[in-house]
Amino acid sequence: MTDCGEIDRTSLLGGRVTLFQPVTGYRAAIDPVLLAASVPARIGERVLELGCGTGAALLCLAARLPGLDVTGLEIQPMAADLARRSAAESGLSTNVRVLEGDVAAMQTELYPNSFDHVMSNPPYWPAGRHTPSPNTHKALSHGDAAGDLDVFVQAALRLLKSRGRLTVIFPAERLDYLLSRLTGRFGDIRILPLWPRSGVPAKRVIVTGRRDAKGPLVLLPGLVLHQDGQGYTPAVEAILRDAAALPV
Amino acid sequence: MTDCGEIDRTSLLGGRVTLFQPVTGYRAAIDPVLLAASVPARIGERVLELGCGTGAALLCLAARLPGLDVTGLEIQPMAADLARRSAAESGLSTNVRVLEGDVAAMQTELYPNSFDHVMSNPPYWPAGRHTPSPNTHKALSHGDAAGDLDVFVQAALRLLKSRGRLTVIFPAERLDYLLSRLTGRFGDIRILPLWPRSGVPAKRVIVTGRRDAKGPLVLLPGLVLHQDGQGYTPAVEAILRDAAALPV
Repeated sequence: MTDCGEIDRTSLLGGRVTLFQPVTGYRAAIDPVLLAASVPARIGERVLELGCGTGAALLCLAARLPGLDVTGLEIQPMAADLARRSAAESGLSTNVRVLEGDVAAMQTELYPNSFDHVMSNPPYWPAGRHTPSPNTHKALSHGDAAGDLDVFVQAALRLLKSRGRLTVIFPAERLDYLLSRLTGRFGDIRILPLWPRSGVPAKRVIVTGRRDAKGPLVLLPGLVLHQDGQGYTPAVEAILRDAAALPV
Repeated sequence: MTDCGEIDRTSLLGGRVTLFQPVTGYRAAIDPVLLAASVPARIGERVLELGCGTGAALLCLAARLPGLDVTGLEIQPMAADLARRSAAESGLSTNVRVLEGDVAAMQTELYPNSFDHVMSNPPYWPAGRHTPSPNTHKALSHGDAAGDLDVFVQAALRLLKSRGRLTVIFPAERLDYLLSRLTGRFGDIRILPLWPRSGVPAKRVIVTGRRDAKGPLVLLPGLVLHQDGQGYTPAVEAILRDAAALPV
C-alpha cells in the first residue's frame, strides 16, 4: 500500500460502512452514497459496479441491502485493494467481491447477460476541457465524455440481463452526452436531478434506463440537497445517515 | 376557408393577440405562449418559427417585443392563412410574415445564416406509437421523433447565424431524442422543465441551444404550472396574461 500515499478511514451510512481512501486524489463525497441509494435492487439479485474506485457505492449498496450479490470492477489495483479492505472492515466481505480489470476489456469472470443491475459513476471531462486533471487518480476518474463514457455504456449493455437496469450518476452539464449514448440502447429512462439548493440549476443527475425496454423518458422532480444555512435536507440526511433508499 | 371547417377566435396574452383557429384538430394551448415567452430576442433581431401552425407562438412573440422581425414557416396553407388573418386582426402585420413551405425543403425566401433566433414546437410521436393521429391537422403536428425532428434541427442549423439560438418546446418523455439531435451541433444547451404541479414529473421541457457554441448544458429548476386547486401559479399567470418573459 506504500504506492498510494497516506490512507484515512471514513464512516458512511451512520457507521454501517467503513471506507479506506487515499488522503489525496479523488475522494468519495456524497455522489456514491446517492448512487447506491438509487439502485432499486432486491435480495437475490446480482449487481455490478463499473469503475468502483475505493468502493464507496459498492459498500453502501451492500450495507443497505444485506444478501445482495455485489461485484465491483476497478482498473486501479490500489483502489481495488482498498475496496476489499473496506468490505472486510465493514463486515461485508461475504456478499461483495472486487475484481481488478478494465471496463473496456472483456472480463472472463463477468458473464454477458448476467446482472440485474449495473451502476456507475462513469468518467467524464468537464465541458470545454480537453486535458485530464494533473492528479493521477482524479485523471483516471474523469475521461473523455464521448469516448470513455461509451465504453461504460457498452459494457453495461453486454453484462446486463434483458430488462436489466443501468443506473449512473453524472454531471448535469453533460446530460446531453449521457443521453446521446443511452438513446436507442436503453428504454424506460428516468432522470432525477440533484439540486444543490432549491431554485438553482442541477449539478448532478441520476439517470437510469433498462435494456430492451421501450417506455418513455421520465424527468422527475428530483432531490434538493441543501437547505439554506441548515445543512442537508431531511430527505438527504435519511439517505446519508439512515441508509434510506432514493426512489428514481 | 371552407376546407378547414369551423373557425373560432381566441384571445391570448390578455387580449394583445387574437388567434383564429379551427374548432377541431390541433389547437394552441399554453405551449406556444410559453415558447414565445422563452425566446430572449431583442429589438432589431430576426426570429423564425419553423412550423408556426396558426401562429400562436409567432404572434405572442411579436406582441411581447414590438419591433422584432418575425417570420413563420408553415406547410399547411390553411394554417398559414389563419396566421396571417390573426396577425392583421392583432395589429401585428407590419413585423410578422408567414410563408407557406416545407421545413424539409430549401426556401428561396429564407437565407442561410440569417436568423438570430429559431423557435419551434416541432413534430413528434408519443413514445411507443407508430401511427399518427387520425386527425389530419394533428397528424401533421406529430411526426416521427427521430426522422422529422432531425429535419427541423437541420433547418435551424442552416438558417441560424453563427451563435444564433434555437428554442424548442418538447414533450419531456422525448427529451432523450431531442438531445441526441442537438448534441455536437448546438452548445450552451439549457433545459427548463415545465412541472404540471410541484413534485410530479415534467410533461414538457423548453430546450435552447446556440449554434457554434461549446458551453456546458444547464438543467434549470424549471417552472411549476399549476398550484393545487388554484389554477396557474403567479409566474405562469404573468406570462399568459401580462406577456411576461420566461428566462431560460
